[in-house]
Amino acid sequence: NHAIEFNSLFTPAFMVDVDKAKRNAQRMIELCQKLGVQLSPHMKTHKTLECADIMTGGSQRCIVVSTLAEACFYADHGYDDFLYAYSFPFDKVLSRLDLFQILLDHPDALEQLRKRPLKDAIAKTEGVELTGVYAHCGNTYYCTGVEQIQAVAQETTKLTLQFMEKLKAVGITCKSSIGSTPTCSHPVKDMAQLSEVHPGNYVFFDVQQSTIRSCCPEDVAVRVLTRVIGHCPHRNQLLIDCGWPGISLDGAGKLPTGYAVIEGHPNLKLLSMTQEHGRVEPISGQLDYSKYPLGSLLTLIPVRSCATAVMHPVYHVHSKGRLVGKWTPTRGW
Amino acid sequence: NHAIEFNSLFTPAFMVDVDKAKRNAQRMIELCQKLGVQLSPHMKTHKTLECADIMTGGSQRCIVVSTLAEACFYADHGYDDFLYAYSFPFDKVLSRLDLFQILLDHPDALEQLRKRPLKDAIAKTEGVELTGVYAHCGNTYYCTGVEQIQAVAQETTKLTLQFMEKLKAVGITCKSSIGSTPTCSHPVKDMAQLSEVHPGNYVFFDVQQSTIRSCCPEDVAVRVLTRVIGHCPHRNQLLIDCGWPGISLDGAGKLPTGYAVIEGHPNLKLLSMTQEHGRVEPISGQLDYSKYPLGSLLTLIPVRSCATAVMHPVYHVHSKGRLVGKWTPTRGW
Ligand SMILES: Cc1ncc(COP(=O)(O)O)c(C=O)c1O
Ligand SMILES: Cc1ncc(COP(=O)(O)O)c(C=O)c1O
Repeated sequence: NHAIEFNSLFTPAFMVDVDKAKRNAQRMIELCQKLGVQLSPHMKTHKTLECADIMTGGSQRCIVVSTLAEACFYADHGYDDFLYAYSFPFDKVLSRLDLFQILLDHPDALEQLRKRPLKDAIAKTEGVELTGVYAHCGNTYYCTGVEQIQAVAQETTKLTLQFMEKLKAVGITCKSSIGSTPTCSHPVKDMAQLSEVHPGNYVFFDVQQSTIRSCCPEDVAVRVLTRVIGHCPHRNQLLIDCGWPGISLDGAGKLPTGYAVIEGHPNLKLLSMTQEHGRVEPISGQLDYSKYPLGSLLTLIPVRSCATAVMHPVYHVHSKGRLVGKWTPTRGW
Repeated sequence: NHAIEFNSLFTPAFMVDVDKAKRNAQRMIELCQKLGVQLSPHMKTHKTLECADIMTGGSQRCIVVSTLAEACFYADHGYDDFLYAYSFPFDKVLSRLDLFQILLDHPDALEQLRKRPLKDAIAKTEGVELTGVYAHCGNTYYCTGVEQIQAVAQETTKLTLQFMEKLKAVGITCKSSIGSTPTCSHPVKDMAQLSEVHPGNYVFFDVQQSTIRSCCPEDVAVRVLTRVIGHCPHRNQLLIDCGWPGISLDGAGKLPTGYAVIEGHPNLKLLSMTQEHGRVEPISGQLDYSKYPLGSLLTLIPVRSCATAVMHPVYHVHSKGRLVGKWTPTRGW
């Protein structure tokens, strides 16, 4: 009985359904195989070894990172072929890998890069090579529905391919890489002409992704487990033991259900939080406190899994209702 | 030259001016001595051993914690006499200390506590003892100015003392504990009749505290160091390498200067953030990009130091312009 097993956890606890994460990852691998483009999964959502393994299908190659801390963490554990997808990281370069690619968006950045002694050596011995053009279609997050997402995918692909043509006209051929989770979840045919895509969130998904239709609600692989710790009938509210360090303030509570969706309780709203408390109230009507005894568990579905995962030093992993392990993400910069 | 030394840090970096932290702590110790009340400092803002040592004046006794993770961390390092200031933590009790006090706000909580085997043993062998009445005057955070803060201090003290009288009338004598950072920074005379105060934020302070006048701007002991990583003249904006995991989304950007105050640049606003980028724009006029070369450092003053500190796995400590060490906070629950 999973309820009993989960009951042993200290709350708030970040929970990963590893079967869903694997299914999400496998689906993206297959979508990219069908398109014939390289999948370079982004690590920023989870920052764990276990999930990186799932997303790379065990190859431990060809990943995108957002911090030098992630780069070091993965390099320490045998990963290689990194794209540090960050503009102007001239102070942060890792020289011990076979392949460490960075983003530059200004000629001054190249100048700065050449100035640093370590990097100067790299530039002199092996040269700085333009490996590709990178575009992240973050504007897909303002879409609703597959049609709008695919329109952005089409537009981004078109502009990127036009730019590749211009480069070609001046004698430069290199890779092209685009892709957010929404566009890669619903790729358009022309994306087959790109070299690579670099989505990241899809391994977990979240309420935002299912709201804009990147995924179905059933695909969301993560939750925050919390406990009822107070009854406040004078305010028609419950207190739970999840404050903002447990779920994050992302989304600013703009959902009808506030800072999260409370699974199985569509009439409940996570109204506000302090550091260790959340205030929950019904969207309409009076709370029936007998349904929420002190100490009982509630399950929050994060609005943005990237923001929620960052708050947790450990993820509790479960499969078929049983706890099967813990994952420890890397943190910091 | 501190600029050169700080320049070696990877950014965003959480910085503590240890001299200011010590001065803030010493001032609170003296205020409490003058009042003749016990100071039980709250650890939730920093969660480090070093700062706990500063706040307890080296005694390592009589602290308030907000999570069991903090309790375990401090117990592991020789601290004792804890108040776990959390309502209904019936699943989280530490039995290896001489003194572990918890908060209960409902008779059901006592019932639940007695049900747990470990705690049942405690209750039977040593009894459950009512040690005091705890009130946290969080409403001081809606004040502006010393006068309003002292009015709340007066009201909270009065209500607490009246309640103590009622308890006395039925034969119960116990401790009384109140206090947020604002009230304890500007105590009223009647607070001398309380047993104890339990502020926490005062060791760091922040923009919120200086705005409501708990402290002067010069007292704020913490900063986030960040770098200019992009110029966006088409949007009249700068990019910095501090996203929401570097400063937090607390305050929802409602300050005129957005999600932080940018030290020495009162005309700059931290408008919005992604996971690893911040967008900065002038409050009025055009940006002079020559003042903000790529790679140059900017210093953010956090709106709420509790929220910002939680985001950082390490704090960089400096004294008189030199880096003097790193503090590692505990995290999680
Ligand atoms: C530069 C960059 N590349 C790739 C990604 C991954 O996209 P998604 O989060 O939509 O999976 C992100 C996400 O923010 C990003 O910032
Ligand atoms: C229960 C409790 N006690 C004490 C404190 C410390 O007060 P302050 O943050 O104003 O220093 C807090 C802060 O939130 C608290 O929640």
